Amino acid sequence: MSGDIKTRIEEANKEFLRRMIAGDPVLVDVAPAGDVIPDFPDRTILHSGPPVTWQSMSGAQRGACIGMVLFEGWAESPEQAITLLESGEIRFDPNHHHQAVGPMAGTITPSMWVWVVENKAFGNRAFCRQVEGRQQFGEYTPEALEALEKWRDVLAPALQKAIRSMGGMPLKPIITKALQMGDELHNRPVAASSLFANALSIPLLTSGLPQGQIAATFGLLGGHELLFLGLSMAAGKAIADPARGIEFSTGVTAMARNGTEFGIQVSGLDGEWFTAQAPEVKGLFLPGYKLGDEGRDIGDSAITETVGWGGFVLGGAAGILSFVGGTPDEALAYSRQMRLITIGQSPDYLIPALGFEGTALGIDIRKVVKTGIPPIIDTAMAHKEPGHPIIGAGLVRPPMECFVKALSRFGERYKLA
Amino acid sequence: MSGDIKTRIEEANKEFLRRMIAGDPVLVDVAPAGDVIPDFPDRTILHSGPPVTWQSMSGAQRGACIGMVLFEGWAESPEQAITLLESGEIRFDPNHHHQAVGPMAGTITPSMWVWVVENKAFGNRAFCRQVEGRQQFGEYTPEALEALEKWRDVLAPALQKAIRSMGGMPLKPIITKALQMGDELHNRPVAASSLFANALSIPLLTSGLPQGQIAATFGLLGGHELLFLGLSMAAGKAIADPARGIEFSTGVTAMARNGTEFGIQVSGLDGEWFTAQAPEVKGLFLPGYKLGDEGRDIGDSAITETVGWGGFVLGGAAGILSFVGGTPDEALAYSRQMRLITIGQSPDYLIPALGFEGTALGIDIRKVVKTGIPPIIDTAMAHKEPGHPIIGAGLVRPPMECFVKALSRFGERYKLA
Repeated sequence: MSGDIKTRIEEANKEFLRRMIAGDPVLVDVAPAGDVIPDFPDRTILHSGPPVTWQSMSGAQRGACIGMVLFEGWAESPEQAITLLESGEIRFDPNHHHQAVGPMAGTITPSMWVWVVENKAFGNRAFCRQVEGRQQFGEYTPEALEALEKWRDVLAPALQKAIRSMGGMPLKPIITKALQMGDELHNRPVAASSLFANALSIPLLTSGLPQGQIAATFGLLGGHELLFLGLSMAAGKAIADPARGIEFSTGVTAMARNGTEFGIQVSGLDGEWFTAQAPEVKGLFLPGYKLGDEGRDIGDSAITETVGWGGFVLGGAAGILSFVGGTPDEALAYSRQMRLITIGQSPDYLIPALGFEGTALGIDIRKVVKTGIPPIIDTAMAHKEPGHPIIGAGLVRPPMECFVKALSRFGERYKLA
Repeated sequence: MSGDIKTRIEEANKEFLRRMIAGDPVLVDVAPAGDVIPDFPDRTILHSGPPVTWQSMSGAQRGACIGMVLFEGWAESPEQAITLLESGEIRFDPNHHHQAVGPMAGTITPSMWVWVVENKAFGNRAFCRQVEGRQQFGEYTPEALEALEKWRDVLAPALQKAIRSMGGMPLKPIITKALQMGDELHNRPVAASSLFANALSIPLLTSGLPQGQIAATFGLLGGHELLFLGLSMAAGKAIADPARGIEFSTGVTAMARNGTEFGIQVSGLDGEWFTAQAPEVKGLFLPGYKLGDEGRDIGDSAITETVGWGGFVLGGAAGILSFVGGTPDEALAYSRQMRLITIGQSPDYLIPALGFEGTALGIDIRKVVKTGIPPIIDTAMAHKEPGHPIIGAGLVRPPMECFVKALSRFGERYKLA
């Protein structure tokens, strides 16, 4: 590689980092996906990860799609839903192609209310669906769907009214504070969820909504420790998107999995996916599930690692180890190791357990390939078959193949010797 | 010391630890001190630390007493208050003699609403006043007193109604969770405060109180990061008191400071104080204050260390280091060091950053003297003169002399050779 090219890459990555650091995510709305996601295509299910077909879909994502077809009323029974999904009449499209992200199967349809986060530094918007523990994992029982209906009919409209009355809620202050309270904002957003709930107490109280609706919403906010994950994912997407399309940048703008394939996207190669078979997650199982039940890695939630949270800040989130396994020293080592594969460190998102040093930020495909160190991601586990709720959580590394393919393509694209 | 005596001490300390571990603190009420503290004496100010006179009182505690005399309406100006306090007509009594504790100057008078925590395992109650940043540090301006009036007239009555409607709130679940969220529950109860606020949202919403009063209370709950300190102190006192008066026990039941003297109490020597000059705090100053402004160590808040929180769990609370100084490694070392001077470890209060090991519990005066290691306490700083709000925070160790005096008296009392 000539010195000139190397300088262009360094300059591009400096710009990549500048944009990531400048990100200023503000929650501006909660609304039906069909109303806010631009040009939402008809009869389409948006899903996590790179593109996928019904035939190649993982069990959890199939189950989640059955759930969404029923939720939208496109079919009246799981059997009808499966027939419809097999017929090819329902289109599938990655969330990432629509400024969106979704947890686990990640399924978003027009009636699903989503968080709307605007990056005030750049004006772009990002969307993420609400996090719950059942349908997004592939369960499609009436109970799993009732929870989605309650979200649509009771909780999300109340949150919409409260958030609009506030004129939006800046998320950066909550995220910086939560990182000092043992959150890593992916599997463990417990502090952020609690702080978010408190920030909404007065706006909800004074919303003018019926007391029963407010109480139900307080019940969600006060009792759902993973609630903020939908917001940290939307914030991550809002922060990452402006860093797309920088010529010569080797920075990663997305890591996403659909349970079949793991895919990454790279700033200087915008629009392309570099994929490999999704890896298996190593972790701990919830009661009733065991090794061998789990499907392959799934979800857009690795957008949190893409912007330096999640597995990258495990060293400051020792509380999560009871959920994903490992020791405090290993957790600190992960956070330090990620500096070897990133462009820089955040000046704003700090880890107290590392002496208030900034999070490792901006995954560089060159450094991943050169060091042989893939990013560390902590994640939940879905079942390999459709029809189950969450079954566990653990740690996972993306396949090296994604980064090698991307770097090879980068060499072709920019004519590197 | 004969083997027989040693065995009796070990048995006594085993019982001491058993009682501390069994403690089950439940917030049962918020009420005026005069209504709930048994036999509240007339014209008396309860204060932090061991007994003290007006003449020997520190600047901060004098200022706080001036504030309380004005708050109670016993005088109409600071000058009149000082004259009254100098006259000997106002009695001073330690909080610890009345099942109570108080932060910093710790002043409690009959009209001051206090948290009421019951230890459900033993039936005893403990009381602590609300934590704020001004009057308890010695400030007695109209603004400082208005905050106390708002607490008395608006906020505390709302909390009373909400807490009574819940039939009380168990504090152990909040405390265990907060310890996994980077709190140490003394200077940093930010997670516990947030979780406590979440737990009160529905009871306050449905309290039937005027919306303005509920909103003001939500404002307090959502915006006061130190709010839970009053609850962790009351919980600590409720947990520690049943461990008093165990013959032959060398366990510490209280550490408390009045800004002039540091005093400890010991289970097998119940009722006696072992005192020495209060130490200076080493720490960081808030803007506008500097080294040399600070008074000596003050407050009953070391009841949190007495039950194994506060400085003892600094290793799990790296977020506090920006406030009190030090490095994450030092913080972990403090938590490990405290095991050298305690009777055992808690099976319930766990520190994730130490691999989910239990907090060091039950300070043993023998071990403190033998190892030469005094307990570590993290604390706020008050000014040496009356009239100031909080000026900083830092770390402090009690004087060895307290423990040496106590051990000497223990030898006399139990006729140890």
